[in-house]
Amino acid sequence: MTADFAITNVRISDSRGEISLVLALKDIEQKLASAGNAPTGEFADAVATLRGLCLDDLGRVDREIMDCLKSDVAMIPAVGGHLIGAGGKRLRPLLTLCAANMFGYQGRNHIRLAAAVELIHGATLLHDDVVDESKMRRGESTANTIWGNKESVLVGDFIFSRSFELMVATSDLQVLKILSHAAGVIAEGEVLQLATQNNIKSTFEMYLAVVKAKTAALFAAAGEVGAVISGASAKESQALRQYGEYLGIAFQLVDDALDYSGRQASLGKSVGDDFREGKMTLPVVYAFSQANDEERAFWTRTFNDRHQQADDLEKAIELVESTGALQATLARAQDFAEQAISALDIAPAGTQRDALIAIAKSSVQREY
Amino acid sequence: MTADFAITNVRISDSRGEISLVLALKDIEQKLASAGNAPTGEFADAVATLRGLCLDDLGRVDREIMDCLKSDVAMIPAVGGHLIGAGGKRLRPLLTLCAANMFGYQGRNHIRLAAAVELIHGATLLHDDVVDESKMRRGESTANTIWGNKESVLVGDFIFSRSFELMVATSDLQVLKILSHAAGVIAEGEVLQLATQNNIKSTFEMYLAVVKAKTAALFAAAGEVGAVISGASAKESQALRQYGEYLGIAFQLVDDALDYSGRQASLGKSVGDDFREGKMTLPVVYAFSQANDEERAFWTRTFNDRHQQADDLEKAIELVESTGALQATLARAQDFAEQAISALDIAPAGTQRDALIAIAKSSVQREY
Repeated sequence: MTADFAITNVRISDSRGEISLVLALKDIEQKLASAGNAPTGEFADAVATLRGLCLDDLGRVDREIMDCLKSDVAMIPAVGGHLIGAGGKRLRPLLTLCAANMFGYQGRNHIRLAAAVELIHGATLLHDDVVDESKMRRGESTANTIWGNKESVLVGDFIFSRSFELMVATSDLQVLKILSHAAGVIAEGEVLQLATQNNIKSTFEMYLAVVKAKTAALFAAAGEVGAVISGASAKESQALRQYGEYLGIAFQLVDDALDYSGRQASLGKSVGDDFREGKMTLPVVYAFSQANDEERAFWTRTFNDRHQQADDLEKAIELVESTGALQATLARAQDFAEQAISALDIAPAGTQRDALIAIAKSSVQREY
Repeated sequence: MTADFAITNVRISDSRGEISLVLALKDIEQKLASAGNAPTGEFADAVATLRGLCLDDLGRVDREIMDCLKSDVAMIPAVGGHLIGAGGKRLRPLLTLCAANMFGYQGRNHIRLAAAVELIHGATLLHDDVVDESKMRRGESTANTIWGNKESVLVGDFIFSRSFELMVATSDLQVLKILSHAAGVIAEGEVLQLATQNNIKSTFEMYLAVVKAKTAALFAAAGEVGAVISGASAKESQALRQYGEYLGIAFQLVDDALDYSGRQASLGKSVGDDFREGKMTLPVVYAFSQANDEERAFWTRTFNDRHQQADDLEKAIELVESTGALQATLARAQDFAEQAISALDIAPAGTQRDALIAIAKSSVQREY
């Protein structure tokens, strides 16, 4: 299927003697235009407010992303557009844009950096889905399911490279340093996560190290670079960095809690991915620490021995809820969300700061 | 096995409450020290001469590479060191070092850039081996065979990120532009190669587009950045770039010819990888263009239909030789090698230029 797809898109242009591959970008444009269709609720309202503050910029970011995905090799805009066009909340680029606006930035580097941040995120997701053998993301089939693992790996590499080209186009060495370092930390976190997988004895510290690296590092860099390009003081840039880091941790904790949420399951939303993959997340770390002998045997069988049966997910959800692990995870998320808000104490008051505070405040109650 | 490996290397350091993973770097150091053990012959002599000119620098490049592969996550130095420590000719970093020496560069950025170039190459190989499902490289089992595909993908991402951090450390925006662009072109070439795979009707132009992107782009950038950091003129930097590009194409053509070489097979060297993977290379493009009806049916069955039998490789080698496709491929390689030499006309005469000319001159006769 993959080869067919690619080959039907190949046209040989005799005049130039070069390969010319054509793809209509219409589909991607439409998807980008409808990106961010969010459910209702306090968090959805906060995202809508933040998007409203950055609406023009966000459109420019989407166009920058589309430009980066252009290629004569048809598979690149197809795979890249499928993922990035499928939407997502665009929280990371919003952080960059909002930080830049907060400090009155005039220029176009915030657009480039916001796009670069989203592209790093997108490349990571393409590779993650290969590594996790994921079938669905954002309500659509994953790129690896549609095109194949090889295609996802190589297009991910392309997107990653393009994000660096975008950063370089800013000619700002400080943001280059921040973002290239973040990219390394993210990759390190992904490898660390693989190393802790299927190890039921993983600790909170191990889990936190993974979350800080694979998720919070990019949130932190996204906030920091927005401040840095605007000429914010070192203290202010650090505040935005810390906000991003704490928000990123809170976000991942909530994501991990939602994956064991009976309420999510009853809403017909996808749960249990982490369980099926043996990914050690905080709900399981807590549940295991509270477990009796029989429960410990259950967790060891399903995680370490990778032996899962039909009703196991249901039982896991029940244990995570009955041991208070779900609530404990959300309580930790709440702590981090509050630290994120405190970090903004020294940031300039105004609509931007209010919007970021509202995001952090509502992030723990979110259901998507 | 993978999980076992990772977990046995995990140590929890109570005092800091953080994960501390330890790996002895001894093995890697030893491998790096013995890297580049080359067969004899004119090309081997040329490589030895070039290495001799850059020997001190090459040692510093290896140490820089080792520093980049350091990580608290044990799998990273293990996987990265396995690949990069296994040697290879280090031609790309040698190009950077030699170009810098040619223009009298004083400083340490040539070390960083040479290391960055080799790291980009290494990350690409890790991902290539996953995509091609390769079992052996440089006489050793591939990382994907030993540790797994997931590990290779993620460690490749890490190495790729680290190479960018190294480039950024030079604070030279022009070389950042050159190398980040090259990385994108390489990834694009890899995707294009995937799209032409198993398409027996691929043309010389399609093949050349793939080779230019996936191989020549990094050779070109490696030469160019060595000149650029040394303050060479734009014309001189372009000369080094062109030398790299033509040499890269010649190299890939010879590699692709060697993969169908009966002589290689008789020497006990690995042949037939491209054939088994259905990778469209020039020997096959030429052989197919000369084929009679029965031979066309053979190529269509083995490439497009992916239906290969026990004796097919032998027959492919025979056809590639009997139709003159092997000689035609090497003749094209010779053309490009000569263009590489001509490109150096305007470069400063001296031992460095002589060494680069000798590499290009002997590259078509090489057998490894």
